[in-house]
Amino acid sequence: MRMHFGKDDALIIRSRQPFNGGPPLPRLAEQFVTPVPLFFVRNHGSVPAINPATYRLRVGGLVKTPLELSLEEIRSLPHSTIVAALQCAGNRRSELMTVAPIPDEIPWGAEAAGNARWTGVSLREILIAAGVHESARHVAFTGLDEVEHDGTRFGFGGSIPIHKALGPEVLLTTEMNGDPLLPVHGFPVRAIVPGYIGARSVKWLGELTVQEEPSTNHFQAHAYKIFPPQVRAENADWTRGLMLGELPVNAVVCDPHDGATVPTTVTVRGYALTGGGRRVERVDLSVDRGESWHTADLSADEPPWAWRLFSRRFTLNPGRYELAVRAWDSAASTQPEDARMLWNFKGYMNNAWHRVRFDVSG
Amino acid sequence: MRMHFGKDDALIIRSRQPFNGGPPLPRLAEQFVTPVPLFFVRNHGSVPAINPATYRLRVGGLVKTPLELSLEEIRSLPHSTIVAALQCAGNRRSELMTVAPIPDEIPWGAEAAGNARWTGVSLREILIAAGVHESARHVAFTGLDEVEHDGTRFGFGGSIPIHKALGPEVLLTTEMNGDPLLPVHGFPVRAIVPGYIGARSVKWLGELTVQEEPSTNHFQAHAYKIFPPQVRAENADWTRGLMLGELPVNAVVCDPHDGATVPTTVTVRGYALTGGGRRVERVDLSVDRGESWHTADLSADEPPWAWRLFSRRFTLNPGRYELAVRAWDSAASTQPEDARMLWNFKGYMNNAWHRVRFDVSG
Repeated sequence: MRMHFGKDDALIIRSRQPFNGGPPLPRLAEQFVTPVPLFFVRNHGSVPAINPATYRLRVGGLVKTPLELSLEEIRSLPHSTIVAALQCAGNRRSELMTVAPIPDEIPWGAEAAGNARWTGVSLREILIAAGVHESARHVAFTGLDEVEHDGTRFGFGGSIPIHKALGPEVLLTTEMNGDPLLPVHGFPVRAIVPGYIGARSVKWLGELTVQEEPSTNHFQAHAYKIFPPQVRAENADWTRGLMLGELPVNAVVCDPHDGATVPTTVTVRGYALTGGGRRVERVDLSVDRGESWHTADLSADEPPWAWRLFSRRFTLNPGRYELAVRAWDSAASTQPEDARMLWNFKGYMNNAWHRVRFDVSG
Repeated sequence: MRMHFGKDDALIIRSRQPFNGGPPLPRLAEQFVTPVPLFFVRNHGSVPAINPATYRLRVGGLVKTPLELSLEEIRSLPHSTIVAALQCAGNRRSELMTVAPIPDEIPWGAEAAGNARWTGVSLREILIAAGVHESARHVAFTGLDEVEHDGTRFGFGGSIPIHKALGPEVLLTTEMNGDPLLPVHGFPVRAIVPGYIGARSVKWLGELTVQEEPSTNHFQAHAYKIFPPQVRAENADWTRGLMLGELPVNAVVCDPHDGATVPTTVTVRGYALTGGGRRVERVDLSVDRGESWHTADLSADEPPWAWRLFSRRFTLNPGRYELAVRAWDSAASTQPEDARMLWNFKGYMNNAWHRVRFDVSG
């Protein structure tokens, strides 16, 4: 089932209400900047129809001067543009689902990631304009959408630590790849928090709240946490768990796709990304389960918060192969081997070696 | 062979000239702040005898006002104190050496790490006083020691990116755990770069150079790089390789030690650390090769750049066990399973699951 945004492009739909979908994986490694129609959509509730003329962004909490900004006012502030990757915390969950069941979650392949050119106002400038109180430790975002959970309705939300919020890379964006945001991507204003899980890049941004503690919104205080492997939903202490923020290093083979049949000379392509301003330094490929590795070529483009595309040509004898990929980042962090060791009952942050099986035809 | 700094404490010496040694591993998990006599020593050359009366720190390169500071001047500047872990890039190399030979390198166990209280002047303040040029991208450190390499002699050196150099956590220290630095730890002045490999915390600091490129010192430009597993010293392109800086997440069981015999109730203790200002969030222990995990208790102390000590009591039936440990940090990064997959010909940055084998006696 595909949703067409344009003539040629399409998303594979994972759920209609709320709308969730991502591109066919091989298309994702074709271009450094992911075209909007191929950019994954992860929504938790409705796509609100917002009237740009009456839209207001409220800035409050621990600030000296609470603000209320119209879209026109936001657009008139100094803008910057950044190329940044986003990745859903649930990217690659389907691999974890083969280890043990993960009920009620979207079975994402590796398509819940993308790399776009975002234009907007730096959050830092807004915070400086509002005057942040000394006790501020977090900045919370709340969306104008409606999410339903446990019989209540509220806007999707989350927060980031103040040191991150003051980084020049965090933007309140109005444009994606040079065009106004589509409704499904957060029109009119979306927070973009490069290097963090996609859930912190809150869409349809209605409120910014400066506060001492992380957001109490369900999606910060409850969801988007990693629990130890022995914990299940039934026995989870939800006040604990690793509250997700910064991304770990990850690499994905987009082409060939799992189950493909390819000729004896094949170019392997994919993406690699990491969090926290670290840099993807190297991508390794193995067709013998890690016994030996081949260094992939990395795309020349490497703005600090973007992903890196990799490729490598292999000439292989006919037969069945399992190709594994792992990346290394500038903290000398690399990926765990086995998704079995990363299983958690919400199915977040699988960054085990990505593996595709394919046949080489004679 | 042990070097006694005090009545009770001792380092296991790995080499005498240059001097290198570390503590017996079980002692390392006893105290949150590692006593000076138990703090590992990693030196590449002589321990210089520096006259504090004539000592000068030169600050030059891309600055408006080159400085020359006496020890008295440095001591008179505003000081701060930070608890920070240091870890040698070669920590846990001995495990990599069981995979394939790594000639001419120190066979460190897991004792090349420590956590001390460092007092000194913030590098940031020195850089502000000197006035950094807009083109500055790196700050290079050079020591007053003498290292021999390929028939030449020079001071040990390295560099860090300017954004790190401007972080308030980077200090030019004169005290360790409240006492003046010992000669073997860098008296009179040692750079402390929390969250980076120990080699960047240059001892006997003589020069600070602000520059556009990383240091050309052997220990930045050549050593302390990770090369792909298929590369050997003979075929390495030394201009490439992953230039080490920020540390990845790591955890080590200090007690019981490998080969120990323990009673049926045993408390497992160790340390966990990570780099880049990330936080150790969880430590997992397994006695069944990762089939199941037990969450360890973490020490309450957790200043941002310190390590975290962990412990957990096990009651086990008599028999032989292999205990594995892994930590998770705030970027949801955890450790690779198998040191075989991390082998590199210089033997750096082994952060595979740390394993100890021990017998439980009936």
